[in-house]
Amino acid sequence: MKFITVKADVKEVPGVLTKDGEHFYTFEQIFGEKAPVSVLELIRQEDEEMVNKVRYYLNIPDQKPYSLREFKQLAPIPRPFRNIICLGLNYQDHADELKTSFAKGKTTPKAPIYFGKMATEIIGTQAEIKVQDEVTKMIDYEVEVVAIIGKRGKNISVEDAYQYIFGYTIMNDLSARDLQATHSQWLRGKSLDGFTAMGPAIVHKDLMDHPLKLDLSCHVNDEIRQQSNTKNFIFDLPYVISDFSKGFTLEPGDMIATGTPSGVGMAFDPPKYLQKGDEVICKVEGLGTLKNTVR
Amino acid sequence: MKFITVKADVKEVPGVLTKDGEHFYTFEQIFGEKAPVSVLELIRQEDEEMVNKVRYYLNIPDQKPYSLREFKQLAPIPRPFRNIICLGLNYQDHADELKTSFAKGKTTPKAPIYFGKMATEIIGTQAEIKVQDEVTKMIDYEVEVVAIIGKRGKNISVEDAYQYIFGYTIMNDLSARDLQATHSQWLRGKSLDGFTAMGPAIVHKDLMDHPLKLDLSCHVNDEIRQQSNTKNFIFDLPYVISDFSKGFTLEPGDMIATGTPSGVGMAFDPPKYLQKGDEVICKVEGLGTLKNTVR
Repeated sequence: MKFITVKADVKEVPGVLTKDGEHFYTFEQIFGEKAPVSVLELIRQEDEEMVNKVRYYLNIPDQKPYSLREFKQLAPIPRPFRNIICLGLNYQDHADELKTSFAKGKTTPKAPIYFGKMATEIIGTQAEIKVQDEVTKMIDYEVEVVAIIGKRGKNISVEDAYQYIFGYTIMNDLSARDLQATHSQWLRGKSLDGFTAMGPAIVHKDLMDHPLKLDLSCHVNDEIRQQSNTKNFIFDLPYVISDFSKGFTLEPGDMIATGTPSGVGMAFDPPKYLQKGDEVICKVEGLGTLKNTVR
Repeated sequence: MKFITVKADVKEVPGVLTKDGEHFYTFEQIFGEKAPVSVLELIRQEDEEMVNKVRYYLNIPDQKPYSLREFKQLAPIPRPFRNIICLGLNYQDHADELKTSFAKGKTTPKAPIYFGKMATEIIGTQAEIKVQDEVTKMIDYEVEVVAIIGKRGKNISVEDAYQYIFGYTIMNDLSARDLQATHSQWLRGKSLDGFTAMGPAIVHKDLMDHPLKLDLSCHVNDEIRQQSNTKNFIFDLPYVISDFSKGFTLEPGDMIATGTPSGVGMAFDPPKYLQKGDEVICKVEGLGTLKNTVR
């Protein structure tokens, strides 16, 4: 099951991709009048039966699917219900490359580095990353795997952690490196409008093998910039979910971005920040391709 | 106008205090069937007419108010729609006292230090701060003034900033100092369940003089720990609203916590962290008293 959101006129329509990946059924087709109004609402209801109904419908549909190419695809969750929980420096090669740039002196983090990313609106695949010249001159890319929490929980054990995941998607954690450095804590440099790209779909965890061993990469135009595998996490997902939930209640719909590998623009000498016209392509094995153009 | 939320059976009921501060009218009394279901919903509607209606009703009510003491008061906004935007080190005396503790070497920040605080539930005045011994042994207090945004805006000028404020309240920005230091970025140490106390009311900006020159203090039991005035902000509120809105859309209901003065527990030698049984009282001139007990 791959959950998506498309735009139909002014409405945001949640749906599920067919197996060919080129068509989708809407929640309305699957659930009728009581359909959740969004992918987020489906997830927040924490209702296993609804997920089963989607699974069943995909096998025995009673209506025709829509063609995906006829719609504009949005981020699967266009508006998060609170900030995205992000990990910094969660790949050793990325921690290493930054020793010589703005995070001087850091080596292996002794504990996960968590920060929040605000997104008034999350942009989807094919959407434009809008340059705001007057605010930042150092826009950087970061390919990441995001885990979407599917179940409310606190003090979750490492062993139980996967049960609390609904699914996964790709994020480009766009970052204004100048603001990130100026303001010391990272919130502002990570939260500019349009600086969160996600998609193309939320892939249900049943389609993935655990623990995750996914190749991920980021290309800018024809140049490969980042390339790694999620097996290289310093702190793996079960640990992170368990750790962050100590004394803190994770809710369905919470998103945990698992950090980015080496090859970010600021680590090059001279730095390779994003420029107008650049095409940024984030790929993760099994999760698809998130493609955005800088304008 | 002072906006509050009380608990009536299982329901959360929004309302407005009468002038004596001991009674309140519910939104239902004021607005009838179309009443906003919460203080947050009223604010997010950005409807000046609704605020006028409240003002008018307080002068010429057509029903009897309820007695506040017969209800449990909650935080005016028990669940924020996204993370609270917080400022670190925004009073010079607090920046100074930390030079010798965990923020070693910091002096005057050259730019505001913004971080996010997650609050699955915000606790109100009189509520208990629950110790989670297994998660942190270093619970600290921080009295702060919070500005609640009342109007959607981006690239707001310093001159226009006050127009974007709905009102103000008090926050005790409870902090797990051990987690704050361990995880480097502050999100986790600031976000434990029950670590955000706010209230007692959101005081509409019309009741305040601008710029804010408010005495604020924090007492633990009979000892005064923090005492300052908001005129001592390093970065004042118009600057902060203007700065944070550069390239970022602030929304009605966003909360900006303006930082805390010196006297936090970790700055004492030996540190004075909160202990079970402590009573913490945060006071801000014109905004009331936020009182919580540690259990």
